[in-house]
Amino acid sequence: MSGHTRDTGIDGALLLPLRIIPAAGGDVLHMLRGNSPLMPDFSAGFGEIYFSETRRGAVKAWKRHRLQTQHFAVPCGRLKLVLYDDRPASPTRGKLREIVLGRPDNYGLLRVPAGIWYGFTALGENTALLCNCADIPHDPAEGEKLPADTPVIPYDWTKE
Amino acid sequence: MSGHTRDTGIDGALLLPLRIIPAAGGDVLHMLRGNSPLMPDFSAGFGEIYFSETRRGAVKAWKRHRLQTQHFAVPCGRLKLVLYDDRPASPTRGKLREIVLGRPDNYGLLRVPAGIWYGFTALGENTALLCNCADIPHDPAEGEKLPADTPVIPYDWTKE
Repeated sequence: MSGHTRDTGIDGALLLPLRIIPAAGGDVLHMLRGNSPLMPDFSAGFGEIYFSETRRGAVKAWKRHRLQTQHFAVPCGRLKLVLYDDRPASPTRGKLREIVLGRPDNYGLLRVPAGIWYGFTALGENTALLCNCADIPHDPAEGEKLPADTPVIPYDWTKE
Repeated sequence: MSGHTRDTGIDGALLLPLRIIPAAGGDVLHMLRGNSPLMPDFSAGFGEIYFSETRRGAVKAWKRHRLQTQHFAVPCGRLKLVLYDDRPASPTRGKLREIVLGRPDNYGLLRVPAGIWYGFTALGENTALLCNCADIPHDPAEGEKLPADTPVIPYDWTKE
């Protein structure tokens, strides 16, 4: 958990490679410790840990939070995440990034700041599992959604 | 996340049924929120979130922590956990419990107090994934291990 974060090309969205510890009966996978460079701010209280499954071929998009910061790891399967920065004051406004999370080569923790549109789809044959440690609990009032095929975001989920 | 905890028959080991929210592309599974009755004590700092995979037929046993309290959820596959209480002052000293965690019927959060021996094995054909939110970071100095076939614990992992 002592690694360095990587810039994703979107301001404030950072990726931290995480350790996988091989073991006889099954691997152990790090996610978050108090000394992580991506540790959420829980000074106002703990947020939430939940899982979101994405079945083969399914797309879950788009979502954006006004206040909540996401911290994503993908311990099962592989997920392609797409981030779109439409924040008026952002130095990376208009940028779009595809980020793959999952073993064997892309196991890590992705921080998605508030204000970023995001969506994801499962890669490969298997259902993917995302674990999110969010800095504040789920509140539908601070979240927004757009359909996957919205013209507002220049991304085509149907392309390979 | 507003459910009630269930007694497991071992003092301090509690099980909280968790919500599964069906969704088109894949389910959403709760694990932990600030208002959970099993919320860990992070007043001295955040502990750790990690995953432990158990492959079909594998047994991971036994472990015990002097200080760390575990909070287990199983979002992938199914796991049989076995708890053994050997705490000298415990009202349930000598008790052994088998607890199944995993969908569809046993998705929940299990709190394993410090001082309890525990181990687990995957049920069924699939690899199981355990997510642990521990109240303090991993420290090998406060953990103990025994082999799965130790005579110290009256449990046979080879039986069906």
